[in-house]
Amino acid sequence: MADPDTPFAVVDVHRTRRNIARLRARADRLGVTLRPHVKTAKSPDAALLLHDGTPGPVTVSTLAEAEAFAAAGHRDLTYAVGVAPHKLPRVVALSRRGVTLRVLLDSTEQATFVASAAREAGVALPTQIEIDCDGHRGGLRPDAPGLTGIGRILHEAGCLDGVLTHAGESYFARTAEEQREAAHAERDAAVAAAERLRAAGLPVATVSVGSTPTAHAADDLTGVTELRAGNYVFFDLVMAGLGVCALDDLALSVVVTVIGHRPEYGWIVTDGGWTAMSRDRGTAMQAQDQGYGLVTDLSGTLIPNLVMTAASQEHGTLTARDGAALPELPIGTRLRVLPNHACATAAQHHGYHVVDSAHGRAAAPAVEAYWPRVTGW
Amino acid sequence: MADPDTPFAVVDVHRTRRNIARLRARADRLGVTLRPHVKTAKSPDAALLLHDGTPGPVTVSTLAEAEAFAAAGHRDLTYAVGVAPHKLPRVVALSRRGVTLRVLLDSTEQATFVASAAREAGVALPTQIEIDCDGHRGGLRPDAPGLTGIGRILHEAGCLDGVLTHAGESYFARTAEEQREAAHAERDAAVAAAERLRAAGLPVATVSVGSTPTAHAADDLTGVTELRAGNYVFFDLVMAGLGVCALDDLALSVVVTVIGHRPEYGWIVTDGGWTAMSRDRGTAMQAQDQGYGLVTDLSGTLIPNLVMTAASQEHGTLTARDGAALPELPIGTRLRVLPNHACATAAQHHGYHVVDSAHGRAAAPAVEAYWPRVTGW
Repeated sequence: MADPDTPFAVVDVHRTRRNIARLRARADRLGVTLRPHVKTAKSPDAALLLHDGTPGPVTVSTLAEAEAFAAAGHRDLTYAVGVAPHKLPRVVALSRRGVTLRVLLDSTEQATFVASAAREAGVALPTQIEIDCDGHRGGLRPDAPGLTGIGRILHEAGCLDGVLTHAGESYFARTAEEQREAAHAERDAAVAAAERLRAAGLPVATVSVGSTPTAHAADDLTGVTELRAGNYVFFDLVMAGLGVCALDDLALSVVVTVIGHRPEYGWIVTDGGWTAMSRDRGTAMQAQDQGYGLVTDLSGTLIPNLVMTAASQEHGTLTARDGAALPELPIGTRLRVLPNHACATAAQHHGYHVVDSAHGRAAAPAVEAYWPRVTGW
Repeated sequence: MADPDTPFAVVDVHRTRRNIARLRARADRLGVTLRPHVKTAKSPDAALLLHDGTPGPVTVSTLAEAEAFAAAGHRDLTYAVGVAPHKLPRVVALSRRGVTLRVLLDSTEQATFVASAAREAGVALPTQIEIDCDGHRGGLRPDAPGLTGIGRILHEAGCLDGVLTHAGESYFARTAEEQREAAHAERDAAVAAAERLRAAGLPVATVSVGSTPTAHAADDLTGVTELRAGNYVFFDLVMAGLGVCALDDLALSVVVTVIGHRPEYGWIVTDGGWTAMSRDRGTAMQAQDQGYGLVTDLSGTLIPNLVMTAASQEHGTLTARDGAALPELPIGTRLRVLPNHACATAAQHHGYHVVDSAHGRAAAPAVEAYWPRVTGW
């Protein structure tokens, strides 16, 4: 890590494996399939760790991911963003290559064009109906009048796979109790929607729930068939702030170099700005605002009270918190910055330099691999 | 623009040309060299518009840009981020290929290693001393005790080129008068530093100033040799909010597709989230907060009162402002979103689909070119 030009993204594969094993064990205990969301790492190499070294079920956020993970051997995918008509030819093309790619929708309009695209192409386009469990984003409420009509349009075209919900508001559930309640609400919404469809004589194979906070809080997933989560492979300061993980679980960081000092302002200036960290300030609304990130030395040891408090395009500003003295970090010193939001920070990079803290905590850990990321749409 | 999968970035080359011509005319009137900052567009194709079709002087924010623009024929570059020792081999390599790449620094420590790298390599490493004119980020105050010592170290190694300052705080100068004052302060700081160096017997060739707001406000650049600005090629909602440009000057937008409706919340959901727009919320601190962006139809005509107010990774939420009715935009409708911060939004994309509004305002303008972007560091 002393060699590549900075800034660059680093993944600690030891922590990643530990985070993956933790949720894997939970899903096994809860008796559900785990379908990790690969939108965070967007790395086929990282995805091989999710299911013991072989491609397993995953969730994707873009068709570019679907195509890249299909090319890497994945055959069981869910595209968890509401589908638009112009995207269906790419979905059909994957289906013809033997890839199961479930699509998502929440309107009669969408169900109609998916059904007609499936009939025209003569392929199954397995589809899930998005259910809104917390007013976060898309979906139908489980009691929405249109639900069974949509189910019927899909079923008649051989496309109805099930229901999917995402408790996006759980990112703002500040206590373990609130996170458990969010997990219950997520389960209840998905199961209620599935029961309504079944009561209307429609077959529901998949009942899918998940978000990183609720996946780690759920204690009973009766009626649910699969669990999704994405952020957990790396975790981040937002998740640490919620208590879903410890700082010691954060697997993603960005290596930056000190390029200046402004002692008159109490600033250390680095070459890692928002192009390297993203503009995400997810902890701004938490009890402890972590600025653009907490700072460790190159070995990964936290430097107490040092926070990245400002970012311009290619500059980061580090300041000391709570009146602490600014550490002596000469020009050229390499540091690691732990991000607010792993998904957003990872998205600023083409790939990851991979280190393994299980091999000890060297002053400058050896880079053991490079994992490219899928980019674009 | 009806064909490519969404989201994608669009540049209106007509507006870009007009923005470029406007600042070009100002620089000519002010009698200074214009050295545009290519950090916004990061496109060698766009850079050809800057100097009438041939590579001219530019500023870069990364060595990846320096290398890419050198490969595209540029021979006169300034790398306007404080230099770290490990970056010098790439600087030396460019110098050996006949590229003039000025580096920037603000400490004795940096001056010493640049001088010694230049001596070792046997090449000139033209260097500028960064001057702080407004407490924004890096640099030495013009009256800083260390200034002439740094100048001497550089001069003795044949590396002293001049001084550079950037009025970063001008982004918060809300009135034309405040922007003019910021421009005066920027000029005064740079000229004062140059005069101190000259008074110490040190030659100062370049006196460089600039930011998009001050470049458009400066009325007298006596003592300054060159002007820098980057954002102006595209402009954005932050600049429109400052009054530096009109909404009609915004040359960058992101095309998104409607993928859902939540009438119960007053939301239209699109497939353009923060991966497409960035997390930048630069207008949040302005008098008129523009959310994640204003919305136009595909032709570029503003849809009154429609604002992108929320973003998740691959979802955008549009809402109506001031109690206006939500327009009817069926699933599949393509829209354009005008960003807060062009530099940040552009950085989320691999390139630009180029349209030309001088060719009329079609319902779905033809894509006339694709300009790839330089990425990474």
